[in-house]
Amino acid sequence: MSEQEPVEGAYLAHALAERTSSLSASEVRALFAVASRPEVVSLAGGMPFISALPMDSIANGVRDLIATQGTTALQYSSGQGSPSLRERILEVMALEGIRDATAEDLVVTTGSQHALELLSKLLIDPGDAVIVEGPSYVTALVVFKSFQAQIHHCAMDEHGLDPARLRSLLESLRASNKRPKFLYTIPNFNNPAGVTLALERRSEILKIATEHELLVIEDNPYGLLYFSSPPPNALRSVDPNVIYLGTFSKTFAPGLRVGWALAPKSVREKLILANEAAVLSPSAFNQAIVDWYLRHEDWHAQVDKYRTLYRERKQALISALATSLPNCNWTDPDGGFYVWLTLPEGLNSRELLPDAVKAGVAYTPGTAFFADGQGEREIRLSFCLPNPTEIAEGVRRLANVVTEKLRANAC
Amino acid sequence: MSEQEPVEGAYLAHALAERTSSLSASEVRALFAVASRPEVVSLAGGMPFISALPMDSIANGVRDLIATQGTTALQYSSGQGSPSLRERILEVMALEGIRDATAEDLVVTTGSQHALELLSKLLIDPGDAVIVEGPSYVTALVVFKSFQAQIHHCAMDEHGLDPARLRSLLESLRASNKRPKFLYTIPNFNNPAGVTLALERRSEILKIATEHELLVIEDNPYGLLYFSSPPPNALRSVDPNVIYLGTFSKTFAPGLRVGWALAPKSVREKLILANEAAVLSPSAFNQAIVDWYLRHEDWHAQVDKYRTLYRERKQALISALATSLPNCNWTDPDGGFYVWLTLPEGLNSRELLPDAVKAGVAYTPGTAFFADGQGEREIRLSFCLPNPTEIAEGVRRLANVVTEKLRANAC
Repeated sequence: MSEQEPVEGAYLAHALAERTSSLSASEVRALFAVASRPEVVSLAGGMPFISALPMDSIANGVRDLIATQGTTALQYSSGQGSPSLRERILEVMALEGIRDATAEDLVVTTGSQHALELLSKLLIDPGDAVIVEGPSYVTALVVFKSFQAQIHHCAMDEHGLDPARLRSLLESLRASNKRPKFLYTIPNFNNPAGVTLALERRSEILKIATEHELLVIEDNPYGLLYFSSPPPNALRSVDPNVIYLGTFSKTFAPGLRVGWALAPKSVREKLILANEAAVLSPSAFNQAIVDWYLRHEDWHAQVDKYRTLYRERKQALISALATSLPNCNWTDPDGGFYVWLTLPEGLNSRELLPDAVKAGVAYTPGTAFFADGQGEREIRLSFCLPNPTEIAEGVRRLANVVTEKLRANAC
Repeated sequence: MSEQEPVEGAYLAHALAERTSSLSASEVRALFAVASRPEVVSLAGGMPFISALPMDSIANGVRDLIATQGTTALQYSSGQGSPSLRERILEVMALEGIRDATAEDLVVTTGSQHALELLSKLLIDPGDAVIVEGPSYVTALVVFKSFQAQIHHCAMDEHGLDPARLRSLLESLRASNKRPKFLYTIPNFNNPAGVTLALERRSEILKIATEHELLVIEDNPYGLLYFSSPPPNALRSVDPNVIYLGTFSKTFAPGLRVGWALAPKSVREKLILANEAAVLSPSAFNQAIVDWYLRHEDWHAQVDKYRTLYRERKQALISALATSLPNCNWTDPDGGFYVWLTLPEGLNSRELLPDAVKAGVAYTPGTAFFADGQGEREIRLSFCLPNPTEIAEGVRRLANVVTEKLRANAC
């Protein structure tokens, strides 16, 4: 902020709507600014390793695209998204078992994040209960809260969301006359927990949802990025009432902001209108690039390359944890970007963070992934961007900080 | 929609939030689908004539950008937008008199449409009054309504928004204990009215706003696209409490969805957080392209080219109207994309539209630009996309339909 910032009318701050009260800068924000210094190993972000992309080939493809289709690609387009790209998206979703969808059922969004925002706008009345996993994706929580939802966490274990707990949560909500608007779930390689919803639980969760007339939003950014074997088919492949969110941010490039929602008609029709109101049309240019990429590049091979790369990085992280932090617990994901680590009793991940950054390693404290203060002993470690050497060094630094703190606590 | 559309759970439609009730497909939507046939002259849309862009040069520039900066440009970025682009935007705004802003005061958005959506989310509580010109930009009305605003129109004349009417509207709102959240205005070459707020009225409007502690949102997509002389300086150049919206959709390319908001601190801080919640970060790639374009192409010359081109088209439209529809009234804009036409008494622009489309010409009925049913005799004609010959032919067809209808009415 400049020092010459003009004096504002006091009425400006008073003009803010009630829903803005939840929108505040997180306490770790300033710390993350420091953590972006090159000497700090960041295990905090969720940035894919896009240096692995065939940049020259993409550069030439995009040049040709502008030269031959520039007047369409650089123009306004439709609120539902490019029909051609939507046909390609059907092929992507078929890889995870979704075979009954048509291009008409899809809406292209400005990243799947924007699908979350638009669905929240469409579904959440102030005070509405919503159910999310515990822990859950931080920016989904931010969006739900920004539409004044009341967030209820449902615990997971190593097999993902626990159906028995979901059932009892729904019953206790019903007992207090609350009807939750939806269940938001990341069934594959959960962000941040790294766990995957087991096959047998999937049908059980869907059965519970049907019984309780509970809308399910399935967010699946990581499903194709498995390490040993593909995760079970998408929830949406079994139940067409599920709203399914996908993205090209992890398999191609997040800087394009191209994601999608597959939604039942009554929601989809409103979603298209809400998309038009919000951005008129998602970028025609970026959609054309993704469409070109899926048609002309060997994107399956690229996804295989990412799998190999992230598997190595995950293994580097797990090995380093086993070596340096044997007194902690962690999940061992079979895909995705994240490991969820539990510190020894008596440690607080948020309080530890300034020391960690000082020691040259950054992570995200577990409390970021809960709306209710849980997660104090937890840490999300991401292995997507740093290389195996950097990961090992980051864990070594983290272990020093943990050891130091335990020693100090013991005194 | 496919015929095999699965049967949805009835609970889906019931899950929709109250605010969605305003989101419905406009009645002219189906008609516009027909109007996109090549034999129909469309005077309906607001698509810039981007065929005038130096496509080969842009194609090569973007290729180099990906090859040299792909790993940054295709990655996630920040919720506030590229610092480098924000520096360039300061130069753009200086052309309209805004010289006290810093890059820190700016937020890049997914088109200025998304700034409107985010500001509405930040400012509008259900039932809040907002003031807009009459007529006003259709998709601003859609956004405001989607956040359950109560829209009040303030009439314009050939010099734009009428300060006396604004004052009396504010007084009548105050008398009924309503405090409007903001005034939304398009002071230059208004969409749809084509009129420009006169210099002497600008200070008067700002004075009224200060007196009434009324936040002003100034939307300025067309200011640089003047025909004879530049419009007066931006309202924001005089009063830093004004929120100013700009876009590259009209001067460069709408398919990139790059716009911006210049906002006082208390609103801007929330706007950045709301932007992050909605899309994580606006497309880094598209921002890098606009940044490159402003640095390496002669964009001032390109804007001059657009001015000449749109001036010719506007003149073609005005001449055709004078020849074929002398019994109508219309505005004669000195810039922008639109002429606002008033039909002879007894005609209804919405009722006329199906006949017009049948006759091979499309336009937007005036009612689209009012929240309260006004505009039945009005029509928005856009001259941005069709060439002068097409424009003349479109007006000829429209005149036939009007003449026919007047004759039928006389019988």
